[in-house]
Amino acid sequence: MLSFASDNTYGVHPKVLEAISQANPGTAPAYGEDVWTKEAIQALEAEFGAGSQAFFVFIGTAANVLGLSALLRPHHAVICAESAHLNCDECGAPEAFTRSKLLTVPSHDGKLRLEECLRWAQPCEAVHHSCPRVISVTQSTEFGTVYTLEELRAIGAFAREHGLYFHMDGARLANAAAHLGVSLAAMTRDVGLDVLSFGGTKNGLMFGEAVVFFRPELAQEFGFVRKQGMQLMSKMRYLSAQFGAYLRDGLWLENARHANAMATLLANGVADLPHARVTRPVQGNAVFARLPRERIAALHADFHFYIWDETDGEGYPQGWPEVRWMTAFDSREEDVLRFIKAIAKE
Amino acid sequence: MLSFASDNTYGVHPKVLEAISQANPGTAPAYGEDVWTKEAIQALEAEFGAGSQAFFVFIGTAANVLGLSALLRPHHAVICAESAHLNCDECGAPEAFTRSKLLTVPSHDGKLRLEECLRWAQPCEAVHHSCPRVISVTQSTEFGTVYTLEELRAIGAFAREHGLYFHMDGARLANAAAHLGVSLAAMTRDVGLDVLSFGGTKNGLMFGEAVVFFRPELAQEFGFVRKQGMQLMSKMRYLSAQFGAYLRDGLWLENARHANAMATLLANGVADLPHARVTRPVQGNAVFARLPRERIAALHADFHFYIWDETDGEGYPQGWPEVRWMTAFDSREEDVLRFIKAIAKE
Amino acid sequence: MLSFASDNTYGVHPKVLEAISQANPGTAPAYGEDVWTKEAIQALEAEFGAGSQAFFVFIGTAANVLGLSALLRPHHAVICAESAHLNCDECGAPEAFTRSKLLTVPSHDGKLRLEECLRWAQPCEAVHHSCPRVISVTQSTEFGTVYTLEELRAIGAFAREHGLYFHMDGARLANAAAHLGVSLAAMTRDVGLDVLSFGGTKNGLMFGEAVVFFRPELAQEFGFVRKQGMQLMSKMRYLSAQFGAYLRDGLWLENARHANAMATLLANGVADLPHARVTRPVQGNAVFARLPRERIAALHADFHFYIWDETDGEGYPQGWPEVRWMTAFDSREEDVLRFIKAIAKE
Amino acid sequence: MLSFASDNTYGVHPKVLEAISQANPGTAPAYGEDVWTKEAIQALEAEFGAGSQAFFVFIGTAANVLGLSALLRPHHAVICAESAHLNCDECGAPEAFTRSKLLTVPSHDGKLRLEECLRWAQPCEAVHHSCPRVISVTQSTEFGTVYTLEELRAIGAFAREHGLYFHMDGARLANAAAHLGVSLAAMTRDVGLDVLSFGGTKNGLMFGEAVVFFRPELAQEFGFVRKQGMQLMSKMRYLSAQFGAYLRDGLWLENARHANAMATLLANGVADLPHARVTRPVQGNAVFARLPRERIAALHADFHFYIWDETDGEGYPQGWPEVRWMTAFDSREEDVLRFIKAIAKE
Repeated sequence: MLSFASDNTYGVHPKVLEAISQANPGTAPAYGEDVWTKEAIQALEAEFGAGSQAFFVFIGTAANVLGLSALLRPHHAVICAESAHLNCDECGAPEAFTRSKLLTVPSHDGKLRLEECLRWAQPCEAVHHSCPRVISVTQSTEFGTVYTLEELRAIGAFAREHGLYFHMDGARLANAAAHLGVSLAAMTRDVGLDVLSFGGTKNGLMFGEAVVFFRPELAQEFGFVRKQGMQLMSKMRYLSAQFGAYLRDGLWLENARHANAMATLLANGVADLPHARVTRPVQGNAVFARLPRERIAALHADFHFYIWDETDGEGYPQGWPEVRWMTAFDSREEDVLRFIKAIAKE
Repeated sequence: MLSFASDNTYGVHPKVLEAISQANPGTAPAYGEDVWTKEAIQALEAEFGAGSQAFFVFIGTAANVLGLSALLRPHHAVICAESAHLNCDECGAPEAFTRSKLLTVPSHDGKLRLEECLRWAQPCEAVHHSCPRVISVTQSTEFGTVYTLEELRAIGAFAREHGLYFHMDGARLANAAAHLGVSLAAMTRDVGLDVLSFGGTKNGLMFGEAVVFFRPELAQEFGFVRKQGMQLMSKMRYLSAQFGAYLRDGLWLENARHANAMATLLANGVADLPHARVTRPVQGNAVFARLPRERIAALHADFHFYIWDETDGEGYPQGWPEVRWMTAFDSREEDVLRFIKAIAKE
Repeated sequence: MLSFASDNTYGVHPKVLEAISQANPGTAPAYGEDVWTKEAIQALEAEFGAGSQAFFVFIGTAANVLGLSALLRPHHAVICAESAHLNCDECGAPEAFTRSKLLTVPSHDGKLRLEECLRWAQPCEAVHHSCPRVISVTQSTEFGTVYTLEELRAIGAFAREHGLYFHMDGARLANAAAHLGVSLAAMTRDVGLDVLSFGGTKNGLMFGEAVVFFRPELAQEFGFVRKQGMQLMSKMRYLSAQFGAYLRDGLWLENARHANAMATLLANGVADLPHARVTRPVQGNAVFARLPRERIAALHADFHFYIWDETDGEGYPQGWPEVRWMTAFDSREEDVLRFIKAIAKE
Repeated sequence: MLSFASDNTYGVHPKVLEAISQANPGTAPAYGEDVWTKEAIQALEAEFGAGSQAFFVFIGTAANVLGLSALLRPHHAVICAESAHLNCDECGAPEAFTRSKLLTVPSHDGKLRLEECLRWAQPCEAVHHSCPRVISVTQSTEFGTVYTLEELRAIGAFAREHGLYFHMDGARLANAAAHLGVSLAAMTRDVGLDVLSFGGTKNGLMFGEAVVFFRPELAQEFGFVRKQGMQLMSKMRYLSAQFGAYLRDGLWLENARHANAMATLLANGVADLPHARVTRPVQGNAVFARLPRERIAALHADFHFYIWDETDGEGYPQGWPEVRWMTAFDSREEDVLRFIKAIAKE
């Protein structure tokens, strides 16, 4: 059965698998003292600019939670969109591990709007309320939309003005870079970011994310935070070798471009159908659409994907739930076309 | 440079790498809904006997911490050896994650002695003290020694008598099975164990450990605990495929037997040297020895290994620190012989 | 300066002070083994009905947090109103101590509406989301409104239907009892409540709240939870003696009736003024009103009270912030009348 | 029944009760904005010297736990004596709230010996181990012994040398001051202390302890820590008024001197008995002694006190458990003499 369910249902890029195999022979120092790790960290820090410091972890939830925990004490709070992965999809790990509060703002497209954040970005005075300390965005967002550089710069300025750290969940940062046509540093360091989760898993790695700090003082004890956070891989070379391959010759960008192109192909392919409507801008590797419930059921016989919102949407016909279709680095054009054809079938 | 530093410095078994490659083509459900996971879990549960339930996590620290957290509330405590990995080598992750206390007893060989545990195994009455809830052992221990089945049964009986759960850190359980010549179930389920960390990383996997529960009611919400504990792998098939290979045709046992044999070879090779003394029984894949500090320095030019105890040992010459040498599934006999020769050199 | 700012700005009832003095002579067992504690606990358990179990703590935040922590593991969540004290005024203590998530629903009058809770009361299946375990109400609410018995019964039924525990923050439960004219048991035990915070501080005690359990199994280890939660008073007799006086001859009810009557007097006194509007039903000891900003400033010269909402309210003139006025057991009628006169002044 | 069980079994000093009554009339700002709090804080800060900052909390466990939490992140650790109240008598609250590890050293008299602390005071390098960050002492100790100023200065120097904060549990600091004949500042600020728990409850208050910081930067967010730690009293004036009375005209010192004198009287009274032996130096308000088990049983008919150590002591007759007798500010000489007589009875 073909899956458009999630970027996690896709495989591992052959170059990444190859790099793993090449790292295998012989013994190597554990816990990141090996040459693969040193090289991959250097490559990452080159990508993100002078002064950046990177640490590898296994998964995106951990990248977010541990990166934030370097910024927070338990009486602090994080401003984020209600739809943020942090808030919705990490089983409360941010609260459980940082013991801090998430202060959410509603968002129809996954992006924070600063006028809605103002409510929370108050001076830290009355001890009865958690003290806001971080503002966190997702780039590209959980809805497949992408912040512009201007939007990110405005959030950076807002953060500085209100004494907040600026955090980014970049599980799909590569897709945003492909969409905007800018460097990774342009979307992060250059907009005033303090800490980033940089994703690999959803874009062709077997597993592996990086926490990137843009201020050395924040990274100072992070080695301990990662170890205590149960994210220090002992045979680290096998994670680092993946990142080495990912950063070499722009594989991360090539993968993201392909994923985005496949999403665009899919969105365009269903755009003019009478019985399907794309519901959100397609800027990354996600397509959201509404179509009749019976049609969804029929498609589910051959294709795996999730219903995102069971309820009716304003301005859409009744009985048309919203679905999410994800593409990835190894989505095949022929499979996308087959899927379009199936959706289009009378 | 050749390493005897840790089982984590060794590589990945070719059959494991092969299984990873074979799992790659195509899409597969994420988060463990794939066929590789189903098969590997079945194989594990077959190994550990009816009623056992297994969950994969990335690393051993997490297997211990999350397994324990299924048993504990923050006012509970865990009885363990002072030398337990839990207590010494997890950067306080057990306390940080379970918020419980570790109640330690000294141990010269890594094994718990019940007469020393009695001090802590008191009825849970006075609210001023943490309430003992778990007794935890390591098999094989951090000193390369192995509990006999009788010893384990006695601890199981002690646990039941004092209302404690029985937990085992089995990061090197395979080595203990190889030493004792018994099944995995015989050392765990059959001695009254409640929860086990079953290691793969140190014995030929790239990464991957299993938390095995022997009472269904303890496993009931563990899926949530693992997710919140940041140990749920999204592309799970690549972890499960490793375990599939590990359990097929007894690869785990073959690997452990080889590692143990290499440790025995090494220990025997230095047994009669005038300037080296093996300090602890060699029952698994670890050799502890004392030798003159200058000799250690000389060996460090060509071989990587750790000094375990810088101080002088009672009954040993002064200036002979204690070192630890670990072997693994892929230690080559010729390398061990070369190492023995280097140690023996006048 | 006269204060209508909070029930915490008021004093201690003379009978409570007297009870403290009478408990003073001689030594007495510490940590609640004294006779005052035994008697007060019996009196409480008589009030709340057979099977109830009560524990004293210092403050309301602790009563809520520790009571909830008896019901929760970190991957669980609590459904509550956005305006709940739990969510707004405890500096994130619920998250920090229970490590669980709060799932909030908006509420214009402080009461939960079940159709809005349905969104969160989903079966506990997908491990990506915190698992709902508790529904929590405040009686009387933070807006001075009171749930009817019918409303509470419906929430109790909803809780059972969805496998949730039912928790009540009763910091001002006495005021609700005075308003409804029902017993404490009728609003708690009889509507299916599992755990209650029963307040004393805001109603005439120096300090002291009780956590009351209506199912013995939930209370089983609560002594440890309270001690570890830093809420076990060593010289407990001085807390228990207060509760003894509070429960004797219905002092709690007499105090609450007076507080409510003073709030009603105040609300009625400003009801017909052209330049003030009471904004919420006055059912307890709180009056919310909107009046012109300049008038608030003028009143602040002689009276202490808080601005609750700086922004304009729909349906009210611009520039009329909402204020909160609290009365208490020892609010004097003459002071209330003086305040009304000041508000009424042209 | 007369109690020598604990300083918590004693009452409240009449001047303290009187101060509470005097604070009662009228309304007053809540949460410490009242005049009693301002005055008491000033008096405390005068006692402890320029730059000190004090915060009131309810109980000693909280003073320790919250004071430490201002110094620690979860991967840090605290060096303390195995017998420290922190480690033994707080039901794991330090671990549960700070999530940090306690690194204990054995101590026969409750005092830390620096040569034994060296083991733990290692540079914070390997991420596998919790990073030592605080050294904590109890003055006077849990065994009724008192550190000299020289000993404290040496610990202060050790702390600075090893990059540790210096913390003191001063639940009975007044007794140590009375014994040494020095000021409170001399034992704290002047020896390089960073944070202190200063006790009131055990020395004549109803409840109330102070956390005193000697570096402003450590106190910066402590208001939030206290609130989140569920230790901010709403009607604070009743705590502060107690401290006001306690600090006025040296009541704290007078109380402690009396308590110490009564302990000395008791120790001297049993010193020459053939069937009782004082086992530890009597420097504060505690007397430890061994006497035959039957004699203890007989005394328990009329006197309440605890058996500290059921086991036989080296150098003492078999069957003589160790008991603890505590005196306090209101121990009456006639009661002590009566107790001595009872102990002496043939």
